[in-house]
Amino acid sequence: MASRKKIELITIGEELLLGLRLNGHLSWIGEQIARRGLTLSRNTSVSDQPEDIEQSFTEAWQRADIVITTGGLGPTADDRTREVIAETLGRPLVRHLGWEKILEEYITNLGRKVLPSHRKQALIPEGAEILPNKNGTAPGLWVSAKGKILIMLPGPTQELQPMFRDEVVPRLEMLEILRCKDHFVEIRTAGVGESVVEQMVAPLGEKYPHLQIAYCAMDGVVDVRFSTANQEYGPDKLQAIADECRTILGDDFVGFGQPLLGQIINDTLREEGQTVAVAESCTGGFLANAFTDIPGSSKTFSGGVVCYNNDAKVQILGVPECLLKQHGAVSAETAVAMAAGAAEKFSSDFAASVTGFAGPGGGTLESPVGTIFIGLHTPQGIWSKKCNFPGTRVTVKKRAVNMALDWLRREVLRQQSDPPPEAIPPYLG
Amino acid sequence: MASRKKIELITIGEELLLGLRLNGHLSWIGEQIARRGLTLSRNTSVSDQPEDIEQSFTEAWQRADIVITTGGLGPTADDRTREVIAETLGRPLVRHLGWEKILEEYITNLGRKVLPSHRKQALIPEGAEILPNKNGTAPGLWVSAKGKILIMLPGPTQELQPMFRDEVVPRLEMLEILRCKDHFVEIRTAGVGESVVEQMVAPLGEKYPHLQIAYCAMDGVVDVRFSTANQEYGPDKLQAIADECRTILGDDFVGFGQPLLGQIINDTLREEGQTVAVAESCTGGFLANAFTDIPGSSKTFSGGVVCYNNDAKVQILGVPECLLKQHGAVSAETAVAMAAGAAEKFSSDFAASVTGFAGPGGGTLESPVGTIFIGLHTPQGIWSKKCNFPGTRVTVKKRAVNMALDWLRREVLRQQSDPPPEAIPPYLG
Repeated sequence: MASRKKIELITIGEELLLGLRLNGHLSWIGEQIARRGLTLSRNTSVSDQPEDIEQSFTEAWQRADIVITTGGLGPTADDRTREVIAETLGRPLVRHLGWEKILEEYITNLGRKVLPSHRKQALIPEGAEILPNKNGTAPGLWVSAKGKILIMLPGPTQELQPMFRDEVVPRLEMLEILRCKDHFVEIRTAGVGESVVEQMVAPLGEKYPHLQIAYCAMDGVVDVRFSTANQEYGPDKLQAIADECRTILGDDFVGFGQPLLGQIINDTLREEGQTVAVAESCTGGFLANAFTDIPGSSKTFSGGVVCYNNDAKVQILGVPECLLKQHGAVSAETAVAMAAGAAEKFSSDFAASVTGFAGPGGGTLESPVGTIFIGLHTPQGIWSKKCNFPGTRVTVKKRAVNMALDWLRREVLRQQSDPPPEAIPPYLG
Repeated sequence: MASRKKIELITIGEELLLGLRLNGHLSWIGEQIARRGLTLSRNTSVSDQPEDIEQSFTEAWQRADIVITTGGLGPTADDRTREVIAETLGRPLVRHLGWEKILEEYITNLGRKVLPSHRKQALIPEGAEILPNKNGTAPGLWVSAKGKILIMLPGPTQELQPMFRDEVVPRLEMLEILRCKDHFVEIRTAGVGESVVEQMVAPLGEKYPHLQIAYCAMDGVVDVRFSTANQEYGPDKLQAIADECRTILGDDFVGFGQPLLGQIINDTLREEGQTVAVAESCTGGFLANAFTDIPGSSKTFSGGVVCYNNDAKVQILGVPECLLKQHGAVSAETAVAMAAGAAEKFSSDFAASVTGFAGPGGGTLESPVGTIFIGLHTPQGIWSKKCNFPGTRVTVKKRAVNMALDWLRREVLRQQSDPPPEAIPPYLG
C-alpha cells in the first residue's frame, strides 16, 4: 500500500463566499475520497481574483501532496484559474491541438460560432495532461511536478462529477493513492434519536480500536459511517463490523448506504404486489412526494389527498362530520378516519395519514404547535400515534413525514416477514 | 467610514471534509456579512485535530483583520478549538465565574448532573469577552489583540445564528466594520432562464460602474443580487437601481428578497378572498407542498389530489375515461380536465394541474421523458401549456412545480390588477 497522501481542495468562486451557493463540491469530492480510504485534509474557498487564487494555491501546494481545484476554467474573463496557476508553476500555456479540434466541433454542433474566448479553453500548462470533458468545453487538467499532483476541474457539477469519477479516480487508483474498492460502510437508521443510536453503536468503537465512527442526524433519520483513518481495516472487515452493527440496531436499521425510507417501502410492497395511499393535512403533499420521488413508484403508490380544510376531509375522504366536530381535525380519531378513507378511495392495501399543527399559528393547550397525529391502515388493522416535534414549520413537516414513513416501513416489513393471524398494534405512541 | 477589513472564516469539523454535512455556516455567515457591505475573503475547512486547528488559525490570523471560527467549543473530548487557539495566542485559560454559574443552572434545569467536562465550557482565554449563548452551554468568545479581532462561535446552527445576529453583528457595527443597514438588494425572477435575465440586467452594470451583480439560478427561479465592493453606493442608491431593474424585468419580477412563489400567490389570493386547489400526477405532492410550506396558507389553499394512476384521475377528479383513453394521461386534454376537476372538487377559484413524465422510465416518441403538461383553471377560463425539462426525476419535478407556480402567479396578479371582461389566454406554450 502506498503511503498516506495529503489531499487539499481549493474551491474557487465568489458565490461561495457571498453565500449564494452551498459548497456542494466539497461535500461530493470529500465523500468520494473518503469512500476510498482517505480524508481530505483541508478545503479552502476563495474568490476568482488572481491574487486569491495564487496565494491559496501556493500555500496548498507547499502543504499537500495532491491539490484539487474547482472552477475558473471556462471561457469568460472571470475564468482565470488556468492562467494564474500556470504562471505560479512557472509553466507557459501551450495550445492543445487535439482539444482545440474537439472544442470547435462541440461548439459548431451547438450551432454557435467559435470565438477566441472559446479557444482559450484549449490552452494548457506545458506538460499537463487533458482530462476530457464529456459535458462541456473546458477540459480538466492533470499536472505532475516534484512528486506532487495538481488536478484542475471545471466548476459546473454536471461536468465535474463525471470527470472526477471517470478520469481522476482511476488515475489515483492506479497510483495506489485511492483504494479500488469502497473503503467505508454507511448505515441508515430511523425512528430513534442520534444519542440513542450513539449509545447502541459506540461499544463497537471500543471493540475495534481502528474504527472511525461518524454520525449525521437529519429530521429523524440518523446515518452512521464506519471507516478507518489509515486503511487498517479492509472493506471486508468493515462490512463484517457493519453486519454486527445491523444486528445491534434491530428494527431501527433501515439499510446500508443511504436508502430512502420510501424506497424500502416501495421495494417491499412491490415484492408483495401491494399498494399504499396517503391522506395528509399539515404535511400538505410532502408525504406523497416522498413516495413519488422513487422511480417506478407508480406500481406501489396509488395516490394521495391533501385535505387542508375540513370540507375536503369530509367530502373527499369521507371523514364523518360529527367526528371532526367532537374530536377536532387534529386528533387520533381523525387520523384514523383519514387513513381509512384514503385506503378506501384509492383501493390500497396500506394507507398513512398525518394531521397536526405544523405552526407557527394554531395549536391548543392539549395539542400545542408541533403536535402530530399519524394514522396507519394495514390489512391487519388501523392505529394512530401522537408525536410532538420542535422546530420551524418546515422542520415539523419533515419530521412528521419521516415518522409516518418509518412506521409504515416497520409495519410493511413486519407483515411481510411474519403475517400474524390477528391484529396486533405495532407500536403505540 | 472605516477602512475595508479582511474577514476570514474557519469552519472546524471533520464531517465537512468527509462530505457528511454541507458547509451551511459558510453560506449563512457569508450572506450576513455581504448584506452589510463586506465580503468574506476566505473560508477554510479543517478537521478538529489540534495541529489542523493551530495551523489554519495561525495562517488566517496573519492574513486577516478579523478571524471567525465555528465549532469545537462543546464539552466533549473532540472539542478542542478553545484550548488550541488560547495556546496559539499565548493566553492562559481562566475560569469565567459568571458563565460557570449560568452553565450550572442551565444543566441543572435540564435535570442533569454538572460534570467537569461541562465546566470546561466556562474557561476562556485571558482577556476574552463572553458572547452569551441562549440555546446552549458553550458561550462564544471575542478576543481583541494587536488591532485584530478573533470571534469563536459554537458549531450547532441554532446556537451560532442567534449569537451571530444578536452579539457579533452589533459589535461589528459599532466598530464601523459592518454597515448598520442591509447593503445589498436581492431580486427574485421566475419563468425565464439565467442568460435571459443576465441580458436584461447586465446593462445596469455598465450604467453604474460600481455595481456588483451576482446571479443564482435554481430550478427555474433566478435570483439577482446587487451590491458594491467598497460601499460606493449606499442602501438608498442600491434600492433605486433595483427599482429600475424591476421595471426592466416586468412580469418576470417576482419580488425583492427571496419570496417564495407560493407566498406571492397566497398573499394575492388572500387580498381577494379567493382560493386555489391542485391536482398532480408526476409532481406527486410537491406542488401542494409548495403551498402548504407557507404559514397561514390554509386560508387560500383548499387542497390537492395526487392522482398517480388513471383510476384516481377518473374516480376522484372526474377525468372522463374516454379522454384518458384517446389522449393519454400525459396530454393537454388530461391536464385541463384535472385542473377543472380539482377546482370543482375543492370548490376553489383557481386550480393548477401537472401531468407528465418525470423519468427515468416512461415517455413516448412525441412526449419524451421530461415532458410536462400544466393545466390552469381560473375564473376566466382554462388553459394548458406543454414544457420539457432536462435533468433527473427530482429536478424535473421541481422545475415543473416552479413553472406551474409561476404561471399561476402571473395569472392571479393579472386578474387582480385588470380583470378583463372576456377570457384571454395568458401565455400559451
